[in-house]
Amino acid sequence: MTDKPFSLSVKVLIQDPEGRWLLLRRSPGSTWNPGKWDLPGGKVESQERFETALRREVLEETGLEIQLKGLYGAIEDEVNDFRVVHLVLLGYGDTNNVELSGEHDRFEWIDPGSFNNRELCLYLRNLIEKNKGFS
Amino acid sequence: MTDKPFSLSVKVLIQDPEGRWLLLRRSPGSTWNPGKWDLPGGKVESQERFETALRREVLEETGLEIQLKGLYGAIEDEVNDFRVVHLVLLGYGDTNNVELSGEHDRFEWIDPGSFNNRELCLYLRNLIEKNKGFS
Repeated sequence: MTDKPFSLSVKVLIQDPEGRWLLLRRSPGSTWNPGKWDLPGGKVESQERFETALRREVLEETGLEIQLKGLYGAIEDEVNDFRVVHLVLLGYGDTNNVELSGEHDRFEWIDPGSFNNRELCLYLRNLIEKNKGFS
Repeated sequence: MTDKPFSLSVKVLIQDPEGRWLLLRRSPGSTWNPGKWDLPGGKVESQERFETALRREVLEETGLEIQLKGLYGAIEDEVNDFRVVHLVLLGYGDTNNVELSGEHDRFEWIDPGSFNNRELCLYLRNLIEKNKGFS
């Protein structure tokens, strides 16, 4: 039983009109999960509402202003001295205008059926598996 | 498609050594879900970390200081002008010392198999159903 403090991370699964998902590849210099595919979003700073944090992070990382459709799911992870809850929403935006920051070196619109050959961040792979489990 | 803002609510499923869950019945005067069974916890105020908010709400509502084990799940709900994400953690505490506030008029330790005859808050019933769906 660990007593590490919790931290909240909010991500968004942005879908294009064909239902593909926007994934970003983390830069080789990232301290966390370099080279792995991730969703836009990030840590909620203290003094920040989670929706504000999400919109801020997504704008920084993709240049997109998003609309939010609802909740995709949540999953727990552990990063160094924190237990992180990743809250993932569903959203959409102007899919033709993605502009990356230095945090990622590539983006791709990926069909949700073809994730198997990708190196996803572990929380994301686990969450996709968890959501598949619904009857 | 709604564009209502999101609000975050954090609740905890406190288990006793027999695996029963602590449920609180909302007072008849509650504006939200009067008379229905709920989990301890509540809204995360702006400028507040979710773990801090949870510990504050649980202490107010039950008198308990809790330890947190992990994530139970998350579900979306709609309350007036907000879309609410309920994040539910798993925890435990000193089960002999529950003291209610005026927000609830009764508490009970309930076996998770025997919820069917209870009037639960809708988000909670939906989340339990959702979690049952895991294969």
